[in-house]
Amino acid sequence: MKDIYVKPIGIIHTPYTKPEDVPIQGKFATNIIGTAEIFPEYQEGLKDLGGFSHVYLIYHFDRAQEGKLVGKPFLEDEEHGIFAIRSPNRPNRVGISVVKIEKVENNSIIFSEVDLLDGTPLIDIKPYISHFDLREKTRNGCVDKHFEKERFPKRVSRSSKK
Amino acid sequence: MKDIYVKPIGIIHTPYTKPEDVPIQGKFATNIIGTAEIFPEYQEGLKDLGGFSHVYLIYHFDRAQEGKLVGKPFLEDEEHGIFAIRSPNRPNRVGISVVKIEKVENNSIIFSEVDLLDGTPLIDIKPYISHFDLREKTRNGCVDKHFEKERFPKRVSRSSKK
Repeated sequence: MKDIYVKPIGIIHTPYTKPEDVPIQGKFATNIIGTAEIFPEYQEGLKDLGGFSHVYLIYHFDRAQEGKLVGKPFLEDEEHGIFAIRSPNRPNRVGISVVKIEKVENNSIIFSEVDLLDGTPLIDIKPYISHFDLREKTRNGCVDKHFEKERFPKRVSRSSKK
Repeated sequence: MKDIYVKPIGIIHTPYTKPEDVPIQGKFATNIIGTAEIFPEYQEGLKDLGGFSHVYLIYHFDRAQEGKLVGKPFLEDEEHGIFAIRSPNRPNRVGISVVKIEKVENNSIIFSEVDLLDGTPLIDIKPYISHFDLREKTRNGCVDKHFEKERFPKRVSRSSKK
């Protein structure tokens, strides 16, 4: 199969300049604000996005290592298959995050629930649609045990108001 | 910014060979089974994926039109910005779907809740983790009105048991 070429449609600005500062997941970083700056040639594509409260940002983990097939998730010390964890160090360094829209203004989306490094190249934006995307009854592999009794490490809630 | 090169890690097999046969969203296609065949060189990355009930498949809309900035979503006749809808005809033809894992076997994931065309190149697999990904209180732009009184078109539930 042929390689696929993807063009950045914008750039993400956040307060996080070092990987170790980024919270494990944006859901826990409610008080941090980021901006997705869309290149002017794609601005028309933002029309009506303000009607959604949340979006998926799809982006390139440009500072991650490529090609790893196993890795240790942030929450634990055991290695798992790369497709069973959310580590940035993966065969195609593509990331997805659900973020909360605060405002759509000109060619920018201002958002909270931020878990991205400053300068991350943006590949796509899709509305989060609970009617399609929400799954309530799930098994969450190695992750569930950390949440059963809220026994997750302190670093999980780092940068969070809660 | 530089273009990003992405290599297919596998291929998706489904019963849908024509775009018009694919249901609007996989959540409504509970009785249809698809297979994600991972190329053998990436098989190690599937370790422990069976502990999750749902995954995100990230893939290339290889038969879509590139570059469109507005489009009409399946549910309506009005045009919206491409980043406010889930149409495959977008600047980077990258798609995401939440699917339900039925079984992980050797280098294959057998899954239900299928909304993908047969032969779709697979880019990445990430576990769906409700603790991170679930957002309950959302505004869903132009989509909400179709679900308020379950007034969505019949085609939405096509291929569904329900």
